[in-house]
Amino acid sequence: MKFLAEIEILPKKGLLDPQGKAVTHSMPSIGLNNVNEVCVGRFITMEIEAASEAEAHETADKASKKLLANLIMEQYKIRITAL
Amino acid sequence: MKFLAEIEILPKKGLLDPQGKAVTHSMPSIGLNNVNEVCVGRFITMEIEAASEAEAHETADKASKKLLANLIMEQYKIRITAL
Repeated sequence: MKFLAEIEILPKKGLLDPQGKAVTHSMPSIGLNNVNEVCVGRFITMEIEAASEAEAHETADKASKKLLANLIMEQYKIRITAL
Repeated sequence: MKFLAEIEILPKKGLLDPQGKAVTHSMPSIGLNNVNEVCVGRFITMEIEAASEAEAHETADKASKKLLANLIMEQYKIRITAL
């Protein structure tokens, strides 16, 4: 079966997020004064061929740990959907 | 009320995604031969002070259009959750 994995990667809470800070500070200049705490991370999607949703999740988790996320500075969340 | 906006930004389908291609080609080297079609984009979260979910969505949409996404090359999706 084919699955779609969607992986959200964000800087860990409390760690420096200079991109997020820069975006937060730019909001008033585009007329938005009601926006705070912007965090900027990465969003990665992939197609996974696997026997079950659990196996697809395991594959996405391995890809995140070994290649996509920097676990010292980042946290990630995985969503799996059958295709 | 406070809302959390989560914005997923991806390269438009059919457009070049060199980062995605590079990640796809790296998968076998970490032992994953069942992964294809990797797309790499950005994930942005923010807190929005708004009267309603619709108003929060409108704010996140304006931020995406004016500042966060490049609409020529990228598409985005917004999720709003009450905090």
